[in-house]
Amino acid sequence: VAHTALGVGAEFDIVRTMVARYGAAADGIGDDAAVLDLPAGQRLVVSTDVSVEGAHFRADWLSPEEIGARATTAALSDLAAMAAWPIGIVVAFTLPEAWRASAPALADGVARAAVAAAVPIVGGDLSDGATLSLAVTVLGAVGTPVTRAGARAGDAVWVTGRLGGPGRAVAAWQRGEAPAPGDRLRFASPAARLREAVWLASAGVTAMIDISDGLGGDLGHIAAASGGRVMFDLDRIPCVPGATPEEAAASGEEYELACTGPATLDAAAFERAFGVPLTRVGFVEAAGRPSVVAERRGAVVALPKGFTHFAR
Amino acid sequence: VAHTALGVGAEFDIVRTMVARYGAAADGIGDDAAVLDLPAGQRLVVSTDVSVEGAHFRADWLSPEEIGARATTAALSDLAAMAAWPIGIVVAFTLPEAWRASAPALADGVARAAVAAAVPIVGGDLSDGATLSLAVTVLGAVGTPVTRAGARAGDAVWVTGRLGGPGRAVAAWQRGEAPAPGDRLRFASPAARLREAVWLASAGVTAMIDISDGLGGDLGHIAAASGGRVMFDLDRIPCVPGATPEEAAASGEEYELACTGPATLDAAAFERAFGVPLTRVGFVEAAGRPSVVAERRGAVVALPKGFTHFAR
Repeated sequence: VAHTALGVGAEFDIVRTMVARYGAAADGIGDDAAVLDLPAGQRLVVSTDVSVEGAHFRADWLSPEEIGARATTAALSDLAAMAAWPIGIVVAFTLPEAWRASAPALADGVARAAVAAAVPIVGGDLSDGATLSLAVTVLGAVGTPVTRAGARAGDAVWVTGRLGGPGRAVAAWQRGEAPAPGDRLRFASPAARLREAVWLASAGVTAMIDISDGLGGDLGHIAAASGGRVMFDLDRIPCVPGATPEEAAASGEEYELACTGPATLDAAAFERAFGVPLTRVGFVEAAGRPSVVAERRGAVVALPKGFTHFAR
Repeated sequence: VAHTALGVGAEFDIVRTMVARYGAAADGIGDDAAVLDLPAGQRLVVSTDVSVEGAHFRADWLSPEEIGARATTAALSDLAAMAAWPIGIVVAFTLPEAWRASAPALADGVARAAVAAAVPIVGGDLSDGATLSLAVTVLGAVGTPVTRAGARAGDAVWVTGRLGGPGRAVAAWQRGEAPAPGDRLRFASPAARLREAVWLASAGVTAMIDISDGLGGDLGHIAAASGGRVMFDLDRIPCVPGATPEEAAASGEEYELACTGPATLDAAAFERAFGVPLTRVGFVEAAGRPSVVAERRGAVVALPKGFTHFAR
């Protein structure tokens, strides 16, 4: 761990505190830009993901450490969706005065997520501002990325994990109730399915996305990118305890993976390797116009709607 | 220009509008992450820079297009400081409802800055939120980066351009006055000195930084990173018309370059190549503790103070 010494000033005092909290999770911080090496023969993968107070979370829902960890994990999840392996993270904080005392805990959370993914924090930015916000940019490397555009007619549709927890947690908070602990944990401490994604890519999946807009919406993105009609069966959706299939299919910010590919994936081996289920929930068929269709008990039903910004 | 088709939803309608405005400046947008190739034998350089309404600018100071262009240029300037060449940009927008109608103009501004640097916009994010914010992450490539840490005793200190405009513009606005047109232009439409930086690196500069905190503060960063005492002479500072040397040395968000290196740089050739002056303003000497010292008429004077967030 080697950093560049910073000059004087209140902004840099906060940065020094945060870098100290990053500890061994950070490397090479402090110059105008970070310098990294891409493994030979690999392509560079980059994604940016902003987490804003009032839009993605409320301050009374999450601890500062959870806010930092969740924002970082959400960004890393986009690398998982490409089957890329992370090589570096940069985090731009907008830190209102009322949040300055929480800067160390926010940094702890970013570090926790970075350590979980074995990726160094290599830089960032810090700004004053009226609203707490973390813009996390993740850099990754991959030989052959898995995009949203590779689904083909005849592919099966697969989902990792059990869905519904984040949607149920947000719904409970919005009713003014405390969510069930399991639901809250799924919202507050998601995992980025990085190793799982590499397994799936090795097993031949053709298209992949992480579930952030709800399964129905995200399979819609695969359909739009790949062409074809993506069918999924609500009766097959893996649900967290207490969740209905409709809740599970509408729940966003899951950071589980949805993918298309062979119907013959070894789900038992996947679950043994990662302790997470892998479930076949549907299939892809040829269609003139891209679409996503949900069925229940053999009949087409309305698509469960997930959380969306900008809907009002 | 090839993009991945997006699914339905109000958020993606805004994204589609913005990508349409990016036009030929964008490439490969729409998957979970962007995929890029680094030129063989080059190292990856990354920097992230957030521009927040109320902290970096006020809505009545700049047009939406200027906000987009300025945020992007500020981020690209960090690549210039490393003598790196940009290979991709991602922009995470936080767009309050009142700003939605300005999304196309913001996108136009990002595109203008990207075209000026010949770099593709490869991805981004869009969030709802209470405060307008653009988190711009820039990716670049370089054989050997120029860091802040390479200054050595005996080096000369050089500065590109003429300083003082942005500081004078902000001071005028804060007094409730309209800034002089030239000062306003320097604040609203800075340039990223990318080609100039490559010239300077080829000419053997040892440390470099872009002037964002004011010349005094930024030379302080070089001193902190490199060790040694950085001396500069206020009488030598290149000033925009009307600016005092003190104003010029305190003015932040200039996005000019300050560097250390040979005293023999060919400033005339630099100005012929880029239409921008290159001025020797000081020197580096050995010192037990890193510091920066300003002189005027041969006497040490107090360091002119630049704009800082978090100072209150």
